[in-house]
Amino acid sequence: MTEHLHRTEVAIVGAGPVGLFAVFEFGMLGMSAHVVDTLELPGGQCTALYPEKPIYDIPGFPEIAAAELVERLRAQAKPFNPVYHFGQQVVGLKRSDDGRTWRLETSTGTQIDARVVVIAAGAGAFGPNRPPLPGIESFEGKSVHYMVQRPQDFAGKRVVVAGGGDSAVDWALTLVDIASRVSVVHRRAKFRAAPDSAGRLQALAREGRIDLVVPFQLAGLEGSDGRLEAVVVADLDGNTHRIEADALLPFYGLSMSLGPIAEWGLNLDRHHIAVDPQSCRTNIDRVFAIGDVATYPGKLKLILTGFAEAAAAAHAAYALVFEGKALHFEYSTTRGIPSV
Amino acid sequence: MTEHLHRTEVAIVGAGPVGLFAVFEFGMLGMSAHVVDTLELPGGQCTALYPEKPIYDIPGFPEIAAAELVERLRAQAKPFNPVYHFGQQVVGLKRSDDGRTWRLETSTGTQIDARVVVIAAGAGAFGPNRPPLPGIESFEGKSVHYMVQRPQDFAGKRVVVAGGGDSAVDWALTLVDIASRVSVVHRRAKFRAAPDSAGRLQALAREGRIDLVVPFQLAGLEGSDGRLEAVVVADLDGNTHRIEADALLPFYGLSMSLGPIAEWGLNLDRHHIAVDPQSCRTNIDRVFAIGDVATYPGKLKLILTGFAEAAAAAHAAYALVFEGKALHFEYSTTRGIPSV
Repeated sequence: MTEHLHRTEVAIVGAGPVGLFAVFEFGMLGMSAHVVDTLELPGGQCTALYPEKPIYDIPGFPEIAAAELVERLRAQAKPFNPVYHFGQQVVGLKRSDDGRTWRLETSTGTQIDARVVVIAAGAGAFGPNRPPLPGIESFEGKSVHYMVQRPQDFAGKRVVVAGGGDSAVDWALTLVDIASRVSVVHRRAKFRAAPDSAGRLQALAREGRIDLVVPFQLAGLEGSDGRLEAVVVADLDGNTHRIEADALLPFYGLSMSLGPIAEWGLNLDRHHIAVDPQSCRTNIDRVFAIGDVATYPGKLKLILTGFAEAAAAAHAAYALVFEGKALHFEYSTTRGIPSV
Repeated sequence: MTEHLHRTEVAIVGAGPVGLFAVFEFGMLGMSAHVVDTLELPGGQCTALYPEKPIYDIPGFPEIAAAELVERLRAQAKPFNPVYHFGQQVVGLKRSDDGRTWRLETSTGTQIDARVVVIAAGAGAFGPNRPPLPGIESFEGKSVHYMVQRPQDFAGKRVVVAGGGDSAVDWALTLVDIASRVSVVHRRAKFRAAPDSAGRLQALAREGRIDLVVPFQLAGLEGSDGRLEAVVVADLDGNTHRIEADALLPFYGLSMSLGPIAEWGLNLDRHHIAVDPQSCRTNIDRVFAIGDVATYPGKLKLILTGFAEAAAAAHAAYALVFEGKALHFEYSTTRGIPSV
């Protein structure tokens, strides 16, 4: 774990479209930003879930692909030299002794001291859906993996792949030539993967090169000290079956959760952060929330609503960052982009 | 005065960027729009005051000229077939007997029956600054004109031009060859017009072809039945002077005012319309206000704030327009643009 301490005016949690536009809005008011995101790229859901999908309700764009919107927002933020910390989840939030600075800590040990924190976390950090198996935590990262980074790690191993979508099927097709044995557990006989891939999976099963364990669900894990020995599966009647295995790869899709943010003492309303709509202040001093994660009566979950909230938060934060300095409101046509 | 009666779901007052985007937002929810504006073109201030000026704070546009933004917003609204009524000011607002429709009347006699009215009037309708001369109303449109549409109307007439800017100087230079006499009244000796034009004016004055009446201000009008006989001017010490004249052309710039809207019984807060920020409802049933004309505590006068308010108003209006029909919120990526 590396440790880095940064100081900045605003720490923004989430590099989706609203977080990126917050960099711009805070920058226009002279506040520089550090941005943390669990993904390896900016854009949040736009990048991760639907980069090619056209969006129709961004003002001035009769139609724009999500990925292009993200690219343009990043370019708009660029003059303000934001520092991005990708592939990290925010974990800790600690107040300084004088109460005027927050220290944000990430999962990789980055520390950011900021005068204000803006949570633009969308629907939350992306994470894998974990099967609800007792004790699974002790196997995670050792013999239970939700992502495959190096297929060769599974060379010669008995691998159980769980799930019926593209990820499950594609990894089964890849690992069949690497692992000593591949079993695919799915609760239905039919796979949701692309028809061609599903067809290849069925063909390999007929050849005896892959075991299709259908319709079965994961029911338990056997092993100790993080070392898996067998995966227990059950059919719809509760009959169980034991598959000897060295590794389990569950591919049950991604879910989003607020993660550690939910433990910070924020007023939450069904997984959203309650804010004052005019300032986007939360109940915690110097902590704001904007975009889909923020809620108030009548809130519309639109990207453009989040853009307006970014502007509101920047104006409200100004007085906290520059104590006593008056903000003279000017139009961007008059002022242009301030030099930073 | 022609009379036309139209029926629509929403009547939008103001075709500035926020009014145009409201066409889109209402359209996305299945509501078609009629739009009224005093200008002859869409865009409001963006078109009338600073078409070439770059704007920096529209999300997704690191920089965009005001006129281009307007063009793009109009294109975005186009699939919903809005009907524009340009060159007209809204004057009347009357409720139908059943209370569920408003009849909007304009200065040219257009009548629009709408289920909801959205006021997106920006800083108000553009109009000339009128000199504060007693009885000037009785001369307006007959011998006092704030705009020149046909210079030949002044052929052979004694014309007094008032003002020191480009409009005053340019019209004096144009009319010198048409009118029998041109006098220019300005309260300073120096003119604010383009140096070349101001120089030509001074040269014509030296040649005796134009009378420069400086430093003088307008002090009174003489005449009857709308027919001007003389313009009275005064110097800074109050000494008056009488200029025989058939026409007065005051060019004191444009101002913006709410106009007749201010008489509708809306809750006003220093020339702005007070709204509930989450729905943009005014105190009058089925009348909404969005963009710069709308105010609430913490309001930011940004175009992008107005865009978000357009979305809020459309969602809030939906229940009034489609009574009892539930609105199922969907993202534009899922739904695309509905066919209309």
